[in-house]
Amino acid sequence: MLDKVDLSSLQDSMVNDDIRSLGERFLTVRQVTEALCEPLGVEDLNLQAVAETSPGKWHLAHTSWFFETFILKSFEENFTPFNSQYEYLFNSYYNTIGEQFSRANRHLLSRPTVSEIYRYRQDITQRMIALIKNNNQLDKIAPLVVLGINHEQQHQELLLTDIKYNLYQNPLLPAYLPLSETLERKRPDKLTAKQTLNWITFDKGLVAIGKELGDGVSADFVFDNESPRHQCFIPTFELSDRLITNGEYIEFIEAGGYDEPNYWLSDGWSMKNEAAWQAPLYWYHQDGCWYQYTLTGNIKVDPNEPVSHISYYEADAFATWAGARLPTEQEWELAAKEQPVSGNLLSSKTFRPVAATEKKALKQLFGDVWEWTSSSYSPYPGYSPLAGAVGEYNGKFMANQFVLRGGSCVTSDDHIRATYRNFFYPEARWQFSGLRLARSL
Amino acid sequence: MLDKVDLSSLQDSMVNDDIRSLGERFLTVRQVTEALCEPLGVEDLNLQAVAETSPGKWHLAHTSWFFETFILKSFEENFTPFNSQYEYLFNSYYNTIGEQFSRANRHLLSRPTVSEIYRYRQDITQRMIALIKNNNQLDKIAPLVVLGINHEQQHQELLLTDIKYNLYQNPLLPAYLPLSETLERKRPDKLTAKQTLNWITFDKGLVAIGKELGDGVSADFVFDNESPRHQCFIPTFELSDRLITNGEYIEFIEAGGYDEPNYWLSDGWSMKNEAAWQAPLYWYHQDGCWYQYTLTGNIKVDPNEPVSHISYYEADAFATWAGARLPTEQEWELAAKEQPVSGNLLSSKTFRPVAATEKKALKQLFGDVWEWTSSSYSPYPGYSPLAGAVGEYNGKFMANQFVLRGGSCVTSDDHIRATYRNFFYPEARWQFSGLRLARSL
Amino acid sequence: MLDKVDLSSLQDSMVNDDIRSLGERFLTVRQVTEALCEPLGVEDLNLQAVAETSPGKWHLAHTSWFFETFILKSFEENFTPFNSQYEYLFNSYYNTIGEQFSRANRHLLSRPTVSEIYRYRQDITQRMIALIKNNNQLDKIAPLVVLGINHEQQHQELLLTDIKYNLYQNPLLPAYLPLSETLERKRPDKLTAKQTLNWITFDKGLVAIGKELGDGVSADFVFDNESPRHQCFIPTFELSDRLITNGEYIEFIEAGGYDEPNYWLSDGWSMKNEAAWQAPLYWYHQDGCWYQYTLTGNIKVDPNEPVSHISYYEADAFATWAGARLPTEQEWELAAKEQPVSGNLLSSKTFRPVAATEKKALKQLFGDVWEWTSSSYSPYPGYSPLAGAVGEYNGKFMANQFVLRGGSCVTSDDHIRATYRNFFYPEARWQFSGLRLARSL
Amino acid sequence: MLDKVDLSSLQDSMVNDDIRSLGERFLTVRQVTEALCEPLGVEDLNLQAVAETSPGKWHLAHTSWFFETFILKSFEENFTPFNSQYEYLFNSYYNTIGEQFSRANRHLLSRPTVSEIYRYRQDITQRMIALIKNNNQLDKIAPLVVLGINHEQQHQELLLTDIKYNLYQNPLLPAYLPLSETLERKRPDKLTAKQTLNWITFDKGLVAIGKELGDGVSADFVFDNESPRHQCFIPTFELSDRLITNGEYIEFIEAGGYDEPNYWLSDGWSMKNEAAWQAPLYWYHQDGCWYQYTLTGNIKVDPNEPVSHISYYEADAFATWAGARLPTEQEWELAAKEQPVSGNLLSSKTFRPVAATEKKALKQLFGDVWEWTSSSYSPYPGYSPLAGAVGEYNGKFMANQFVLRGGSCVTSDDHIRATYRNFFYPEARWQFSGLRLARSL
Repeated sequence: MLDKVDLSSLQDSMVNDDIRSLGERFLTVRQVTEALCEPLGVEDLNLQAVAETSPGKWHLAHTSWFFETFILKSFEENFTPFNSQYEYLFNSYYNTIGEQFSRANRHLLSRPTVSEIYRYRQDITQRMIALIKNNNQLDKIAPLVVLGINHEQQHQELLLTDIKYNLYQNPLLPAYLPLSETLERKRPDKLTAKQTLNWITFDKGLVAIGKELGDGVSADFVFDNESPRHQCFIPTFELSDRLITNGEYIEFIEAGGYDEPNYWLSDGWSMKNEAAWQAPLYWYHQDGCWYQYTLTGNIKVDPNEPVSHISYYEADAFATWAGARLPTEQEWELAAKEQPVSGNLLSSKTFRPVAATEKKALKQLFGDVWEWTSSSYSPYPGYSPLAGAVGEYNGKFMANQFVLRGGSCVTSDDHIRATYRNFFYPEARWQFSGLRLARSL
Repeated sequence: MLDKVDLSSLQDSMVNDDIRSLGERFLTVRQVTEALCEPLGVEDLNLQAVAETSPGKWHLAHTSWFFETFILKSFEENFTPFNSQYEYLFNSYYNTIGEQFSRANRHLLSRPTVSEIYRYRQDITQRMIALIKNNNQLDKIAPLVVLGINHEQQHQELLLTDIKYNLYQNPLLPAYLPLSETLERKRPDKLTAKQTLNWITFDKGLVAIGKELGDGVSADFVFDNESPRHQCFIPTFELSDRLITNGEYIEFIEAGGYDEPNYWLSDGWSMKNEAAWQAPLYWYHQDGCWYQYTLTGNIKVDPNEPVSHISYYEADAFATWAGARLPTEQEWELAAKEQPVSGNLLSSKTFRPVAATEKKALKQLFGDVWEWTSSSYSPYPGYSPLAGAVGEYNGKFMANQFVLRGGSCVTSDDHIRATYRNFFYPEARWQFSGLRLARSL
Repeated sequence: MLDKVDLSSLQDSMVNDDIRSLGERFLTVRQVTEALCEPLGVEDLNLQAVAETSPGKWHLAHTSWFFETFILKSFEENFTPFNSQYEYLFNSYYNTIGEQFSRANRHLLSRPTVSEIYRYRQDITQRMIALIKNNNQLDKIAPLVVLGINHEQQHQELLLTDIKYNLYQNPLLPAYLPLSETLERKRPDKLTAKQTLNWITFDKGLVAIGKELGDGVSADFVFDNESPRHQCFIPTFELSDRLITNGEYIEFIEAGGYDEPNYWLSDGWSMKNEAAWQAPLYWYHQDGCWYQYTLTGNIKVDPNEPVSHISYYEADAFATWAGARLPTEQEWELAAKEQPVSGNLLSSKTFRPVAATEKKALKQLFGDVWEWTSSSYSPYPGYSPLAGAVGEYNGKFMANQFVLRGGSCVTSDDHIRATYRNFFYPEARWQFSGLRLARSL
Repeated sequence: MLDKVDLSSLQDSMVNDDIRSLGERFLTVRQVTEALCEPLGVEDLNLQAVAETSPGKWHLAHTSWFFETFILKSFEENFTPFNSQYEYLFNSYYNTIGEQFSRANRHLLSRPTVSEIYRYRQDITQRMIALIKNNNQLDKIAPLVVLGINHEQQHQELLLTDIKYNLYQNPLLPAYLPLSETLERKRPDKLTAKQTLNWITFDKGLVAIGKELGDGVSADFVFDNESPRHQCFIPTFELSDRLITNGEYIEFIEAGGYDEPNYWLSDGWSMKNEAAWQAPLYWYHQDGCWYQYTLTGNIKVDPNEPVSHISYYEADAFATWAGARLPTEQEWELAAKEQPVSGNLLSSKTFRPVAATEKKALKQLFGDVWEWTSSSYSPYPGYSPLAGAVGEYNGKFMANQFVLRGGSCVTSDDHIRATYRNFFYPEARWQFSGLRLARSL
């Protein structure tokens, strides 16, 4: 199916994001979402194994709901909702808007059907384009459109991580995409069994972290949680030059890492025991080999690829075992702030993390896997959420989650940046999440 | 969609069951299952709200699996499974056959798709027909075919009760079928608000209960749990001449029936509180009126229709409140054994219980709603299960469930009989389950 | 401690029950309860591991509450409650009386203290004696006193089975009583490793089951659930002449009984897996031997003693494996009705089941272990509960439980009889529960 | 009972801590623990309502276990454990030492009895004194003794907060202590209904936070989690001059604070709904008045006292409602570092927070209630846990908890300091936990 979709053209469009008009950016993001759904059948689009992994159909609808609720409803003349019940059905968590349909039960919504949702998408897309073209309130609308674009990009990533988890529940282990439809991984010819791990040193000092909220439209868009820019004192530290690999993680497993409580946080040890974790999510051991389920089906675990689908607890335990620690988000940002945003991101169409091949000193900062940091997700000094319902976007989640940085192999290229703060609960494993080590000096 | 299907022809075929050949009976049951799925979309066929309510697609597959596993596998020359993984995916609970895919997760099987399942059905149907036509072991095969036909009829009923429950989870409350596609209810012209309840007396005595297992082929087929026929002493009792109505049940509600522990079994009172029951399943109260969700959508509760979708606990509490009790299954069978099998069954195409209009003394014994009895589901004296894997069909469930008698508005006409024993857990409410009263004298 | 208590005198008093006055019977039962608590410390008397196993202190209080609430409150002149809050704290399940303190949290009642409860007991005992001596309404009071005596005897048994379960949670495995303070088991000199199992045949026929409620005072007291006496047709069957032994149960275990689903009821198989049962409660395997925790501490499992502490599911699975079944409660009663009530009961002071040594054909009918029957606990034809709050005593539990017959090694001698119906949920294992086999002919 | 204990002498001894020898400090802490248990009966000492609130008996034993395991076992000649099974029974969470008895089931340990535990305490106390007096390895032992003293002080506080929660489960609501046995609260004569709330400003700058681990013996003892001392950049902020009062919290409640999701963190809103919080723990509303359960029994809520027993979520919601926020732990420490450690602490013997009466600008920094900060509990830069099993003391809990500062009315006077970091899960309410507001400028 994917051959109907010209993903390679999307790739180009992504990197030239800055020069496109708002309308083009909007249309592109809408198309990409639909292209990502192409390989999925109607039944696949209704799957939901756990509350966290929403059906693809729901993502298709919710991203349209976002534009309808936060833009069309306020700015379209003679606004009429596409369907008055959708406000309830496709609201994710905005209490300001109203009650929400039970998150865990989204898979029970056989109606509206996938076809009806596509009609809904088309209607919203067209009305949004009309609004963008004609409206004389573009200064008010544009920041919300850009927010909606970024919002839809986040859901594109979730759509892929969710469908991976959902298809995995089926003993037939269906692939999202045949391997032949992904781009070849740029693999080094003679990769040795184990790559060296080097350390890069950063000197202590006062550093500016985060970014001010700009006009919310141009390329310097940031989420409110990345603001305000503020001073931070960072002691001297060093950072590993690349991500931790599957091979290194297997050493941890074989060294009894999952059986030795001293490596683990107390909550991590409880969680590991309760969930009976013995390896990353999607891994299984057979005839002396490790295998893993990927978006292209089952494959052997490649020791040179970055380890992925581990929880914060596992990342932290690995770091302790290795005599190191996870970086803080400030340390990570300091290291990344001068680096170009490039790497194994969505446009690479690998749909999985790949081995480090860059020549530069600090490798794999962007793409491949989100990197767990030791920083609990909390407000920056002076932070205040956006006004209105969109104020619920980020701020209310600032407890009990940890910050991840750098994007993954399924993050849009024009979505990620050095100041970007992703956040998940420490037990989450269904994202492409891995780690890089740090050490205090 | 349903207009594509000639349900009226099925109606005729059902009642003339005795004279049709085995092959015709087989084909009919296969067609009816598919006809019942006609009004449902692909996404509807994958719904599963709780473990008990399997997706329609799973019913389509499992009924085919039954014929493949218990007949083709043993009797077809050069048997090759349609798909070797289906044995695991579509096994319901036969440990003798092997492990089963998690019941509660059947909705996670987006693959095989509905289309693939229909191909599977077609393949099994054709191979079964070939086997029936050509095989020289018909004496061995026929009893299993008849068992499979009866098995598929049970799943037809489940298919409807499950989809009712599953669609009900959707706030849009989609109907299974528009009212216009059901047959008009034969409603008396001037039904008074409340019908008289009369009592029929039965004298004490030794009664033969149950039926011997016959050759398992001809019209006298019975399940093993109806055998062996045995003597039973029944003291004098009386039975209400019809089912309890919604109107009478509303009186119970309004008399505080749900708030007075003295009417309830101890486990029933706990269950009611835990589940916060205040009325039958599918009922809600609005502006002083009771409404209910039906297979044709939301309607006002009709006080003359039999109450349905109540648990054993509610049936028992109602009976206690009314100064009566539930009949035992032996009492019910004694009353029904000489009665013709007719009533508001599947061929009536009402898809809901209707008000009693029969002229005879004992009304509504068959059809409308399954009648809870006070009998715990247990083996008859001398009972032994069938040999082999089909021995798991009934016997292993003989604990913790209660017997229901008489069939419902969605039971096949040629499936029900006076000795038929259905069984559900006392908290089950998603079946068409109601009650008739009894009194000791 | 127990040497302070003259249990041997109690033993005599028990067997001569008939000739004692009501007051003497009342006093005796009060003394026995306290004697049974003698070996326990204050902290032991507050233990409660699960909701089912109430603290000893609570039993001491609740049995007093029963006399206070159902007798003193109605018949004592100028009645004043000992403590007005006790009505709430020590009500077990009588909704007619009022709300009850959470059953699972009884261990949280450090106040009233054990000392205060003993003062409460003494006060109630004295006032009851005064009432019995002086009251001119003895005809109304006496049936309630006898009910209260029987009620307290039931709690004596629970007190012992509960404390066994509660002490067992402590890794120190403290004994309730040192072995030296129990009576020697009358063990046959040369008991062979395996005793023969013989079958006794009973011919089919109409049998009178149960007993009429008498005046509720004299020795023919029965609970309401044993009434009314009614006719029952029982087909020919045979019964094993003794209880199933530990040795026989070990054969079942070693034959893979816990791993073969075909022996198990469906609910039993689920329960076994969920609870990871591999042997009776209190058993563990070490160095090739089976051991068990008893009221006198840990001992080796004796192959000649009756198996105990098994659930209904295990009893049923054993019977299926053995090619037999459990008896119905009617079959059991038919076999027991002409037998004298004697056996290894509380007055034997063994505090555990012992090997069969009787010379008669049918052995161990009374005492040792309660025998699971295949009969679901349900009302006899024509049953109606007692009037008033005591009507909640038995009737409201008539669902989801199974009947056990015959009493155990900790049942009072004058409490048990052929018509006595005990009942527990099929997963219960903390009672002294075992089995005898039956076969249809 | 408490009159047997000379708490007033303890009070004096506490404040002069610095000049006492190690042995005297050790003896004092042992005595205080026992004095705090004086008002409790044997049954009270075995209460445990939830896993978090251990029985008093367990605290008595575990604090002895700590000295036995970490000191006597390593340094006593010919060490023999008091009871070899105690190592397992009274280990809290030290995996390095070995397995632990289930935390939630500590109330099931009726044995060893309270008497036996007191014998255990006495034995350990005497052997410790002997070791301190005679040992020539005092340099190695002393830091562990001081750690053990501080450990026991933490358990003294838990002992009181746990017993408060445990007694509260009893409908009789027994007091820990009669009001007459606490010290009179120094209440201002004419306290107005509402005290002014003033703000103190702190300028931005680099600040040294934490304290280096010293020799672990002298008065500058700190826990490892307070180290290392490190630089931190703090932006300008202001802090409220006193704690938030009950009166102010009632305004929040009456303004609908518990019903408006916009004030709440997302996890807080879920938790509030799940637990049905409508006020602080121990509060109830009756006849238009708020009442609360205290260690001296039920009293009216005093609007001038600091609000206590609120979760992090409630503290955060209150702050949001008030247009402010919680301080970070660094901000709190900056404000407290130059302040003397005095306030309503354990030696005040009020056993509850009291209204602010100090004359100084910043009031109530120490004592009354622990103050929730917005800081997630995490390691300071360069932190590493102590070597050996005591390394499990603090570090492994550094996830998912929030830091509280300042001590409470039941914290020992010589236990608290400006750098002290307490930590609890955000839903915890059984500690004396309240809040102070902060604002960014």
